[in-house]
Amino acid sequence: MATARSAVPELRVERERSRLDLEQLTNFLDGGEMFTERRRELVKLVVEDPVYKRDDKYFLSREEAFESSMRKSIHYIEALKSGKIKGRPDAYFYRTAINDDLPTVLHDSMFLPTIEGQCTEEQKEKWLKLASNYSIIGAYAQTELGHGTFIRGLETTATYDPLTEEFVLNSPTLTSMKWWPGTLGHTATHAVVVARLITKGKDEGIHLFIVQLRSLEDHRPLPGIKIGDIGPKFGYFGMDNGFLHMTNVRIPRDQMLMKYAQVSRDGTYSKPPTDKITYGTMVFVRAGIVVQSASILARAVTIAIRYSVVRRQTQNRPGEPETQVLDYQTQQFKLFPLLASAYAMKFASQYMLKLYVGITGEIAEGNLESLPELHATSAGLKALCSEISSNGVELCRLCCGGHGYSAASGLPQLYVDYSPAQTYEGENTVMLLQTARYLLKISRQKVPQAQLPNNVAYLGVDYPKYKESPVLTPKQFNDPHILLEAYRQRVIRLVAVALRRYMNGIDSGLDAVAAWNNSSVDWTVAARAHCHYLVLKAFQSSIDTAEMCEANLSIMRVLCCLFGLFGIMQYSGEFCLDGYMNSDQIEMAKNQLYSLLKEVRYEAVPLVDAFDIHDDILNSCLGRYDGDVYRHLYQWALRAPRNKKEVHDTYEKYLRPLLKKTKSKL
Amino acid sequence: MATARSAVPELRVERERSRLDLEQLTNFLDGGEMFTERRRELVKLVVEDPVYKRDDKYFLSREEAFESSMRKSIHYIEALKSGKIKGRPDAYFYRTAINDDLPTVLHDSMFLPTIEGQCTEEQKEKWLKLASNYSIIGAYAQTELGHGTFIRGLETTATYDPLTEEFVLNSPTLTSMKWWPGTLGHTATHAVVVARLITKGKDEGIHLFIVQLRSLEDHRPLPGIKIGDIGPKFGYFGMDNGFLHMTNVRIPRDQMLMKYAQVSRDGTYSKPPTDKITYGTMVFVRAGIVVQSASILARAVTIAIRYSVVRRQTQNRPGEPETQVLDYQTQQFKLFPLLASAYAMKFASQYMLKLYVGITGEIAEGNLESLPELHATSAGLKALCSEISSNGVELCRLCCGGHGYSAASGLPQLYVDYSPAQTYEGENTVMLLQTARYLLKISRQKVPQAQLPNNVAYLGVDYPKYKESPVLTPKQFNDPHILLEAYRQRVIRLVAVALRRYMNGIDSGLDAVAAWNNSSVDWTVAARAHCHYLVLKAFQSSIDTAEMCEANLSIMRVLCCLFGLFGIMQYSGEFCLDGYMNSDQIEMAKNQLYSLLKEVRYEAVPLVDAFDIHDDILNSCLGRYDGDVYRHLYQWALRAPRNKKEVHDTYEKYLRPLLKKTKSKL
Repeated sequence: MATARSAVPELRVERERSRLDLEQLTNFLDGGEMFTERRRELVKLVVEDPVYKRDDKYFLSREEAFESSMRKSIHYIEALKSGKIKGRPDAYFYRTAINDDLPTVLHDSMFLPTIEGQCTEEQKEKWLKLASNYSIIGAYAQTELGHGTFIRGLETTATYDPLTEEFVLNSPTLTSMKWWPGTLGHTATHAVVVARLITKGKDEGIHLFIVQLRSLEDHRPLPGIKIGDIGPKFGYFGMDNGFLHMTNVRIPRDQMLMKYAQVSRDGTYSKPPTDKITYGTMVFVRAGIVVQSASILARAVTIAIRYSVVRRQTQNRPGEPETQVLDYQTQQFKLFPLLASAYAMKFASQYMLKLYVGITGEIAEGNLESLPELHATSAGLKALCSEISSNGVELCRLCCGGHGYSAASGLPQLYVDYSPAQTYEGENTVMLLQTARYLLKISRQKVPQAQLPNNVAYLGVDYPKYKESPVLTPKQFNDPHILLEAYRQRVIRLVAVALRRYMNGIDSGLDAVAAWNNSSVDWTVAARAHCHYLVLKAFQSSIDTAEMCEANLSIMRVLCCLFGLFGIMQYSGEFCLDGYMNSDQIEMAKNQLYSLLKEVRYEAVPLVDAFDIHDDILNSCLGRYDGDVYRHLYQWALRAPRNKKEVHDTYEKYLRPLLKKTKSKL
Repeated sequence: MATARSAVPELRVERERSRLDLEQLTNFLDGGEMFTERRRELVKLVVEDPVYKRDDKYFLSREEAFESSMRKSIHYIEALKSGKIKGRPDAYFYRTAINDDLPTVLHDSMFLPTIEGQCTEEQKEKWLKLASNYSIIGAYAQTELGHGTFIRGLETTATYDPLTEEFVLNSPTLTSMKWWPGTLGHTATHAVVVARLITKGKDEGIHLFIVQLRSLEDHRPLPGIKIGDIGPKFGYFGMDNGFLHMTNVRIPRDQMLMKYAQVSRDGTYSKPPTDKITYGTMVFVRAGIVVQSASILARAVTIAIRYSVVRRQTQNRPGEPETQVLDYQTQQFKLFPLLASAYAMKFASQYMLKLYVGITGEIAEGNLESLPELHATSAGLKALCSEISSNGVELCRLCCGGHGYSAASGLPQLYVDYSPAQTYEGENTVMLLQTARYLLKISRQKVPQAQLPNNVAYLGVDYPKYKESPVLTPKQFNDPHILLEAYRQRVIRLVAVALRRYMNGIDSGLDAVAAWNNSSVDWTVAARAHCHYLVLKAFQSSIDTAEMCEANLSIMRVLCCLFGLFGIMQYSGEFCLDGYMNSDQIEMAKNQLYSLLKEVRYEAVPLVDAFDIHDDILNSCLGRYDGDVYRHLYQWALRAPRNKKEVHDTYEKYLRPLLKKTKSKL
């Protein structure tokens, strides 16, 4: 990585004048010095390993990318097996540093945990060993061509045959084909298949089965199995998202995952004790998306902010150099709220993980009381953060002008690979509606704060609904507590609006389904606002308890207020609802926001440097630490496959005949 | 194309119950029966021509795409040369139907028009003939590595040498390399190069020069020329956007385009009569982006709305089929405003073209008075419409859930190929600021409406600034004239806010540059709102003068109000500014919007059918006219290159060694 000294003058100036303690800030973002250190060690392992080289990544075709990813995947597995990488956090950091598709990744992230969580001890003895050794490679086959988020609608069947003590798996319709699972297309030998269990003629609903897909001798699909890749996608070139069609595929009885539900030899079915038990993995994956949202946006703003300092546009005053793009208020207004959002989501991730650990601890002790809170929070934060981050990456790309459109910027790849987080693991609107269900329940209960979990306590019946915001001057907005109160009052009002519409529906004779549907847009708005509040609160709490130098603390407060104020601008109508804020106050909020942009401008480059993203991981000609943008854009272009020959093959084949034909006419 | 009868039941039902006169609506959108007819003839020509086949398009690698596009390009040129396609409108429709990158397209759209517009008669005699015959192929080389929108900053030099009567072209710095021009990389033999003219030691600013780049014998770059492709991009795989570096490249004096400015044999420079003269082409291209915005969004909503009728999710009531996704209010709230926007932008395009024709007519007669209006309107509408359309395509993709992420949906390709319209031909924020400059000038003048051009008359000093909106019931919002007034009042207030901030800056001692920068976010907001008003107004005017059956007129009124009301929801804070609307009225607007969603639901499918987009052009498994979505997704996937072999090559190379190694340990 380039040193500070070798950077272009534009970036050097920014870094030299900074008052921040960068190392301290990086530690704060990582959650402690120890984590920073370990992360750096793992990043070093990756960037010094030639197999993970990624400087040609943007040149690869989809087919080349798959081969390259498979090579990296196997190398990654070997690192795990060698014991060089130990434990999940290390594996996570290591994988993040590889920063590429790994076709085998669902084996680690879905297949193995499912075996661990849903198998009996006997089953684990066999399958966990096989899977941990990578003697088999597994996918997790849930989504079907016709059904995604609505799991109860899945159509694949597993019918028990007591004569042979086997399950017979079938894809009875076109739409029942498994569709989308990663690792399934060409990599997996096995899969956990989600199917409707049918025994003694009765449909017992969704259960899990281990099915072998391909021969361990030659990798050919087994009889009754039709399997392949689902074809090109927006991104994820290196993944083999697959389809799976089954016709009378027989598996032994003990390949149903039987930790919670069982089918006996004669086909008698025993129900699981609770159907909420599978929440755990799902919540964990959603929490992971919140973490990822922060990291991805951090990468994008690093690229856009560094480049906006290097890039100049328009000589505004005679004799002066052209203005650096980051000095334009319009550019600051786009990028600095995103910078603040990246920080905010880092803290929201830490909050989310803490909540997860706390509540799953309770659940392990048999206390399921907080499960709805955990579920509602993770669903809503997943939706809000993936939305902010996806939109943010695109905005960063647009902020880089034409060069943002070049693959060399790294931003197109970042966008196409990250954007599906809005859809997978629960489509975002559906997720917001799940959070909203929780808000509906709470708001109908009309109970005092004391009876509510901490993060929704303000929806208690005894929480004050202030008539109007007390703010009289722009400066007063420079206070996270004032902002938090405004955010609370906004949610209180939005929930009331949604509830009123819902109850009006019920009162006018609609059933609950129709009344819910009629008020669902209002509910998504309320749910988003609640999650927005949680993110701001996580930001404020992190600062309140942080031990950092005053310069760091002070810029964190600025970012926190910037995040809060930008939300007020973005959703000003919601803050004016029911007269809580008036348009003069909105104007004051805006004035304050504009002042903060100037404060952030001063430390913008150090603030992205603090994310400490290695150049090799960033993989962006625009976002380089040294700012040597133009030379690298040129060198990169020279390496493009299309430039291998000075005269491209299309000349002989197409252009020459055209030019010759017409020439003879001259 | 499939007939109505062969469609899936879900779509059949929608079409059978419709009360609209579809053919009449299509004619209305096309601007008349005659245009519909001609468009269909040209579409037929394309879809029946095997060279233009595009069903494999999403499988092509970047290199394959370039070859395929070049083949189509040559075929297209042959169609033009054969006289089968005559005149610009026909060529436009024909090219639109081809719906693919054409590497030679800049020859037609930029090189030729520049020769036509900027050459002397003598020059035309030579170059227009060569170019029209395609004896040479030209690019338009303006943008450089370091400069895009700020044209005055271009660094390429053309220094006149009176001894040899030649210009000597140079790329004096790394950043001066030409970068981005399409057709330049591997296709063009010549280019119009934009460079600083230096003669008699003086820099006379930007002028145009014809430079031969490659030998007409073997297509090799000529001495002093370094040329190639700039590498992979987000989209446009089939285009060879290129770079060009020149070292002492000499061209004869008569290859400077001398219609307006001249350099004599001895190097004496004569200025052009006005430097506004080049506005014409730029305005035309921006108007074209408005037209394209409407078409692209129409394609995306066609896909998303048809698919949302076919797709079902969640069994909401026992015994009933799962709900069609389009019946969810949340889905309607996303898609119907986009449907309304696609219609609105169709009418805005017609308005834009009419304005263009009218004002360029005046300019041709030497009257430049309306040029600022034309410039401001085209810049702002370009920005607003390309923003609405890009964001809209992405939202449509997300509305299609997981399958929207598949290339088979057609939406990823649509997005990556259309999104750069936000950046090229003037970056959108810069465009809005140009519109804003015009608004600043008008608002500072403080003149009566009568002295202002029609579309900004409401900013006249005598236009009433109403204290508050007169609306008392939701239904009252069902009136385009009420909505238009609200839009005007919003702009009046936003302009006042921006102007106040600007003047405060000046009063506090800032220079004009700093005061402008400090108020620039406010100005972009005001400019966007003004353009938003123009689009709504174009919609309303089109309906007011339309001759259609009552059912068609009625649904057009619904869409127009939906468009207006959605804007109020989206920017509610701006409508509340200075108390014009209050939060009760915003609530009423929302209620009315929700009612309109239900009305649109009834005719949603016919409304997208009316865009009359041929299945082969749509090229989407999800958006097919017959709705046979799942079967086609499957058939498409089976054809993917990665499925050529049942066992992928990566097995032998990577997976087998891994699986074998571990197996021996068992």
